[in-house]
Amino acid sequence: MLPDNTEYTENTLQHDPQRPGAAADPEAVRTVACVGAGVIGGGWVAHFLARGYRVVAWDPAEDAEERLRGLVDAAWPALTGLGLAEGASPDRLSVVATLAEAVADADFVQESAPERLEVKIGLLAEIDAAAPEHVVVASSTSGYSMTEMQVKAARPERLVVGHPFNPPYLVPLVEVVGGEATAPWAVEWAAEFYRAAGKSVITMDRELPGFIGNRIQEAAWREALHMVDNGEATAEQIDLAMTAGPGLRWAFFGPCLTFHMAGGEGGMAHMLDHFGPSLKAPWTRLESPELTAELRDAMVRETDEVVSGRSTADLIAQRDRRLIAVMRALAEVDAEEEREAAEAGR
Amino acid sequence: MLPDNTEYTENTLQHDPQRPGAAADPEAVRTVACVGAGVIGGGWVAHFLARGYRVVAWDPAEDAEERLRGLVDAAWPALTGLGLAEGASPDRLSVVATLAEAVADADFVQESAPERLEVKIGLLAEIDAAAPEHVVVASSTSGYSMTEMQVKAARPERLVVGHPFNPPYLVPLVEVVGGEATAPWAVEWAAEFYRAAGKSVITMDRELPGFIGNRIQEAAWREALHMVDNGEATAEQIDLAMTAGPGLRWAFFGPCLTFHMAGGEGGMAHMLDHFGPSLKAPWTRLESPELTAELRDAMVRETDEVVSGRSTADLIAQRDRRLIAVMRALAEVDAEEEREAAEAGR
Repeated sequence: MLPDNTEYTENTLQHDPQRPGAAADPEAVRTVACVGAGVIGGGWVAHFLARGYRVVAWDPAEDAEERLRGLVDAAWPALTGLGLAEGASPDRLSVVATLAEAVADADFVQESAPERLEVKIGLLAEIDAAAPEHVVVASSTSGYSMTEMQVKAARPERLVVGHPFNPPYLVPLVEVVGGEATAPWAVEWAAEFYRAAGKSVITMDRELPGFIGNRIQEAAWREALHMVDNGEATAEQIDLAMTAGPGLRWAFFGPCLTFHMAGGEGGMAHMLDHFGPSLKAPWTRLESPELTAELRDAMVRETDEVVSGRSTADLIAQRDRRLIAVMRALAEVDAEEEREAAEAGR
Repeated sequence: MLPDNTEYTENTLQHDPQRPGAAADPEAVRTVACVGAGVIGGGWVAHFLARGYRVVAWDPAEDAEERLRGLVDAAWPALTGLGLAEGASPDRLSVVATLAEAVADADFVQESAPERLEVKIGLLAEIDAAAPEHVVVASSTSGYSMTEMQVKAARPERLVVGHPFNPPYLVPLVEVVGGEATAPWAVEWAAEFYRAAGKSVITMDRELPGFIGNRIQEAAWREALHMVDNGEATAEQIDLAMTAGPGLRWAFFGPCLTFHMAGGEGGMAHMLDHFGPSLKAPWTRLESPELTAELRDAMVRETDEVVSGRSTADLIAQRDRRLIAVMRALAEVDAEEEREAAEAGR
């Protein structure tokens, strides 16, 4: 005889010193609560629905349900194009009237409230009070640290940041980091869960303002603002320089691998030893760090891990193949849109 | 009766006050001289061959011809995949023994010598002395200004910078700018020629170290170096943050359009008015410019030109379609490579 639900729950609720029982298996998550359903929160809802989860959402705005269902419907063709999980359906979304209802049965909670510190602090304390004991709660914040936000929660150890990129239903990156009062198990659990939910996850061991992705994005953005401010380039030139230049490669090879390739057969070591002096050149307003022997060696060693044994010829072949695939894919979309516009105009 | 060649040449060699006759039509270029055939010069050779030009190359290295033909052969499948111009063939490449021979019959010259100022100055003076009178000569330099490089040329007015991105046979961006002694017609002519040769061209009206694309790329790179220097992120995390995050979008929407979309229906104006204070946040080591009313208005006005009448809904639909196309294209290449590796392993 199978144990009834009560017994089953009790059995799995053994207290693991590393990770409490109820949250034991990130792969077993069935129900996700989304608190806040604006652009980011709604994007999370669409993502979790497409991955086959049941989603319970709450947002205090009057027209929240209508807007949210509209966002999901608008994103669904894109998600279908990418491939839905089995059983995925917009019908598995419930929009409820209170925060307590939203989180009561959740296996995981994603908070995406407006970026105001008091709002985040209060909401995380409320979610913590209402959600099942060992359920992990993640905040989408891009501007605050969990250390700042978890101060009023009774169980701050299960609160983490799970920072997505817009739109969360398509862009895979999620950066996961805890606050000072967060338990390591919660960070690990969240990373495993996001991976199970189809995301590309970076786990950070310290709270860094802007995480990693936003630091890179913001550096590029501020350089762009300086150029416009000085009349050196227009927004149009900046955007074209990106999309016809480095942006095409950055869709598949990051800055470290790109600069490794700039060193030819000598890779990152040759690049740094040969072009290191250009770090003093005024090619951006951002001052470079000193290229110490330690930094040089760290870059070489870490980039070697990214390269992972691929030869220069391998990397060139892989880069070219991907560049062509990306360029052809984008050209096809352009052509489709032109055809559609021509047909609509007839 | 058709005029014989002499008459014809004479007729078209009338001196235009804006642009000398012999260089009259960038679309009529048949023969391109490539001086220097390393990674960048060789990449240019492959590009021009693929676009159907006859290419005459010169490089002082002993094994230059062998390496160059190897590079062209390695790139040819990629170029075929992207689509060749009619009549394009690696057989239209001649490698010659002297610089004078290389440029003697050229309709355009691309110089891609090593990045050493004295080398560039000497070589540009030699090319200028040997190339037909009104032929435009472009340098691939990424580190020097044409003002610095054109000092020993007898006809500096026809010397421009045509700065490509690596690999020049695939990445479309070329940044064109003249030096103080360059004539405006030469900059215009080069831009028209590169466009005719299938490139995405940005014409700059001033010499900016790092041009535009490299400034953006270098800002991201220096931020990455700082993060590694401080143990905040590894090369692997940085590369993943880029390729799973902002890099995916930057393949088709640049930083200005991306931040316009971050403002929702309110666009760039809302973004700057609402998130402007975050420019003071320590999200990168790069200090932001002051967000003056002038800068705000310039960003809004210039981004409007990029937006070019598209609604928020249009932009979201276009972004999602391209994100999916890029992600699917990259996933297909991954799958193909895995299949090939599995077959090779059998």
